[in-house]
Amino acid sequence: MELRLSICVLLVLCVTGSVNGGRILVWYTEASHWINMKPMLETLVDRGHQVTVLVPSSSMFMNSSEPSRFQYEPFNVSLPVEFIEQLVEEFLHFSLYEMDYLNIFQIHSRLIKLLKKTTNFSLTILDGVVKSETIMKKLKEGNYDLILADPIYPGSELIADILGIPLVFSLRFSIVNNWERLCGQIPAPPSFVPASVSKLTDKMDFSERVFNFIFYALQDTVLDYSMWKYVDKYYSEVRGTPTSACKMMGNADIWLMRTYWDFDFPRPFLPNFKLIGGIHCRPAKSLPKDMEEFVQTSGDDGIVIFSLGSMLKNMSTERANIIASALAQIPQKVLWTYSGKKPETLGSNTKLYKWIPQNDLLGHPKARAFITHGGANGVYEAIYHGVPMVGIPTFADQPDNMAHMKAKGAAAIVSLNFMTAEDLRDAINTVINDKSYKENVMRLSRIHHNRPMSPLDEAVFWIEFTMRNKGAKHLRVQAH
Amino acid sequence: MELRLSICVLLVLCVTGSVNGGRILVWYTEASHWINMKPMLETLVDRGHQVTVLVPSSSMFMNSSEPSRFQYEPFNVSLPVEFIEQLVEEFLHFSLYEMDYLNIFQIHSRLIKLLKKTTNFSLTILDGVVKSETIMKKLKEGNYDLILADPIYPGSELIADILGIPLVFSLRFSIVNNWERLCGQIPAPPSFVPASVSKLTDKMDFSERVFNFIFYALQDTVLDYSMWKYVDKYYSEVRGTPTSACKMMGNADIWLMRTYWDFDFPRPFLPNFKLIGGIHCRPAKSLPKDMEEFVQTSGDDGIVIFSLGSMLKNMSTERANIIASALAQIPQKVLWTYSGKKPETLGSNTKLYKWIPQNDLLGHPKARAFITHGGANGVYEAIYHGVPMVGIPTFADQPDNMAHMKAKGAAAIVSLNFMTAEDLRDAINTVINDKSYKENVMRLSRIHHNRPMSPLDEAVFWIEFTMRNKGAKHLRVQAH
Repeated sequence: MELRLSICVLLVLCVTGSVNGGRILVWYTEASHWINMKPMLETLVDRGHQVTVLVPSSSMFMNSSEPSRFQYEPFNVSLPVEFIEQLVEEFLHFSLYEMDYLNIFQIHSRLIKLLKKTTNFSLTILDGVVKSETIMKKLKEGNYDLILADPIYPGSELIADILGIPLVFSLRFSIVNNWERLCGQIPAPPSFVPASVSKLTDKMDFSERVFNFIFYALQDTVLDYSMWKYVDKYYSEVRGTPTSACKMMGNADIWLMRTYWDFDFPRPFLPNFKLIGGIHCRPAKSLPKDMEEFVQTSGDDGIVIFSLGSMLKNMSTERANIIASALAQIPQKVLWTYSGKKPETLGSNTKLYKWIPQNDLLGHPKARAFITHGGANGVYEAIYHGVPMVGIPTFADQPDNMAHMKAKGAAAIVSLNFMTAEDLRDAINTVINDKSYKENVMRLSRIHHNRPMSPLDEAVFWIEFTMRNKGAKHLRVQAH
Repeated sequence: MELRLSICVLLVLCVTGSVNGGRILVWYTEASHWINMKPMLETLVDRGHQVTVLVPSSSMFMNSSEPSRFQYEPFNVSLPVEFIEQLVEEFLHFSLYEMDYLNIFQIHSRLIKLLKKTTNFSLTILDGVVKSETIMKKLKEGNYDLILADPIYPGSELIADILGIPLVFSLRFSIVNNWERLCGQIPAPPSFVPASVSKLTDKMDFSERVFNFIFYALQDTVLDYSMWKYVDKYYSEVRGTPTSACKMMGNADIWLMRTYWDFDFPRPFLPNFKLIGGIHCRPAKSLPKDMEEFVQTSGDDGIVIFSLGSMLKNMSTERANIIASALAQIPQKVLWTYSGKKPETLGSNTKLYKWIPQNDLLGHPKARAFITHGGANGVYEAIYHGVPMVGIPTFADQPDNMAHMKAKGAAAIVSLNFMTAEDLRDAINTVINDKSYKENVMRLSRIHHNRPMSPLDEAVFWIEFTMRNKGAKHLRVQAH
C-alpha cells in the first residue's frame, strides 16, 4: 500500500505542474527535530530545489561537514556544544529526578529558570546569524524563495521578515500549544482540547476540564515570563521598533504540524495548518545479516525492540539491572540500544547495541512490541508499522505522547524511576498477549495509511505552493 | 492542468486500494442541490458502487422516470409539486419585493412564518418515507452501507439512525451556519467568522462584529422556533423517546462542504469537515454550431453570459426592458436565458435562449463577464473558468455569495428592483474594463485549481473511507 502510495505521489507531483527549482533556506534545529526534517529536505532536493541549511558551530546533531545533497551555511556560536548537552541533561534531571519531589510552586520556579536559560541560550545562537554581517549579507544575497523552519529555535520569523520572504513552519507542538493558539490563532476550547504536555486526553471530567483551563493559563504565563519577554526584547532591538515575536510568528504562511488523527485527538484547526504526522516514516529495509540471524532465532515469540532515544545517555546501574532482569523474563528476543556497562542481570535473550535500525526492526514481521521513551518520531514509526508500545517517558513531549497512545489503547506506560522488574515484564507481556493492544495500534496504522494524500506529498505541495505564490494568503484567517 | 489532475485522480483512486462496490442510499433533494449532487453520483457509479436515489412524487427537479445510471426509490408525497413552486415563489417575492419595505420585526415575523411553512412541508415529504411501511421495509432490506444526503430536507439523520448506517452530508451551508455550528460543533468566533446570509465579510469593524454576534443569536432563535421545534417533535414521535434532531445531525460521519478558500473566507474547521467547493465544475465542451457562430461574431469584444437561474421565472416587462436596454449599450454579444416575452428594447447584440450550456460558455475563450443571480453552482463555474461577475442576487444564499465575490474583487452587484439601465451597463463595463476584476477572479481560479486534491477525489475518498470503516470516528471531536 505504502509503495503504491509513493508511486502515486510521484505521479501526482509530476502531473500537477512542474515547479521551477526554488531556493529554500532551512532554519537550524536540533536532535529529533533535525532527524525528522531531513527526509523532507531530501525530497525537495529530488524535486529540483536548492536546499541550504543554516548550521550553528555548536550543535549535537547538525554537522556542516557531513556529506549531503544539501548546501550548508555554517555560522559561529559563542557557546560550546557542551553547554547544550548540559542544558539537556539539566532538563532530563529535572523531569526524571526532581519533579516528583517538588510542590507545584517549586516545579514552576525551577521550570521558569530552566526555560529562561534555554531562551537566552537560543538567543545567543541567534546572535551568530543576526549579529554576523557576513551571514546576513549572504542570506540577503541568497535570493531565497522561502524559509522552512522548526520554530523550536527562535529567529526564523525575524529573518523571514527582514528578507521579506514567505515562511513555512514544521513543528510537533509547543508547550500548551502556546504558539499555535496565541500566534497561529488556532482555536482550542478547553472543554475538549487537552493542553499539550498536560497528559490529559479529549475525554475529561469536570475537574479535569477545570485543571485543563488553569493549565493553559498557567503555562501561558510561564512562557510570557521565561520566553516571550526576552524574544520580544531581542526582536525589538534588531528591528529598532517595538516588536511582538508572537505576532511575527503569526505571519507564517503554512504550519506543517507533525501530527494526524492517528496520534492526536480530533480538534479544530485552521486552513493554513496542514497535518504531516509520520512524514519521516518509510517501509522497512532488510536488516544487517547478523541482526537478521538473531531475529530469526526468536521463532514464533518474535522480538522486542527497545530504545530510550538519543538523549538519555546515563542510567544508574540499579535501573539498568532492573530493566535487564525484566527483559530476561520474557520469551521474546530483545534488541536494546544501550551504551552503558553491560548489566549483570542481562539474559541470554537480550542483545545490546550502540545503535539499531529502529524503523527496519519495527517493520520486521517478527516485531511484537516496542519499548520506547515516547519520542514523537519513534511513536510514529510504531504506528506506521502497527507495533504496540511500552512507554518509559523521560521528558519534553514524551509523557504526553505516551498518554495519547495509552488513551488509544496502543501502549502501556511504566516509570523509569519507580518501576520494578515485574512492572516492566508485566507491561511487555500485556501489550503482547492482550490482543486489544495489537488491534488498537493496527487501527491507528490503518488511519495513518488511509489518508487521501501522504504526509510527504502534503508538505511538499504546500511548500511549493507557497514558493510559487509568494505566500498562501487565502488560507490565513482575519484573526491575524 | 484539470485534465492532468483528473488522470491523476484516477491513478490515486486506483492505487490506494480497490473498494468493493458499496450500496449508497442518496437522500432526496431539490433544484440546484440536486444538480450539484449528480456528477458526484455519476463518479460513484463509475467506481462500481450501487447508487439508489430516493425520489419524492412531488419534485421540481427530481424525476424517477428519467433515464439514468442510478437506481430510483420513488415514494409518494401527499402535496402536489405546485405547492413547492408556490413556496419558492413566496420566498422569492418576500426577498425581492417585501423585505426592503419592512422593519426588522416585520421581516422576522414574516420569515418565521415562511420557515415554519417550509419545515412543515418538508416533514410532510418525510411522511412519504417514514410513514410508508413499504418504503421503510425496502430501505431496511436494501442493506445500504451509507446514506449520502444534502440536509436541506430533514430526515436523513433519522433514517441513518434507524438503519444503523453511516451518514455523509453534502451541503453549501445552513442559515448562520446553524447546523454546522450547533450540530456539527464547528467553531465560529463572531469576531472574524461572518454569519452566513449576513452579507458580512471577514473584515469587520466593531459595529459589524456586534451586528454579527447579534445576527447569529437572532437567527439561531428564529430557527429554534421555526424549524428545530417541529423537527424535534417529529423525530421524537418516530423514535418514541425525546430526540434532538440537531444532536442526531451531529452523528454525521463526514460533512462535505461545498466551499473552499477561493469562495469562502478562511475560518476554523474540524477534521470531519471536508471542502469540496466546485465539485460539479468541468472543462468546457464545444458549443452547438449556431451558438458558436454567434459567439464568433463578437470579435475581440467577446461575449457576456447572462442567467438568473432556474428559480426566477417571472420578471416584470419594465425590468426586462431595463435589462435589455442596458445590454444593448455594451459592445459585447450577449447570450441571455430568458423565457418571458421578448423585451422591446432588446438590442441586436443580444440573443435570448430558453436554456444555455452555461459551463461551456463560461469556459469559452471569448467569455468576458457573467451576469448571474449568484447561485453557488454558477459562481463556482465562474471561478473555475476565471470569469468576472455582475451579481443580481434574488434570494436564499445568493446575496451572501455575491457579497463574497464582491469582497474578493471578482464581482460587482446591482439590485434587480432598483437598478437603472445605466447601473447595469456600468457594472458590466466595469468588471470587463477594470482589469482588477479579471485579475482577482483569475487569482481565485488559481486557488481553486491549485489544490493538492480535486474536490471530486476528496469527496469520493471520504465516502469510500466511511463505507470501508463503517464511519470515521477518528475525525470526530469529543464536543459531540
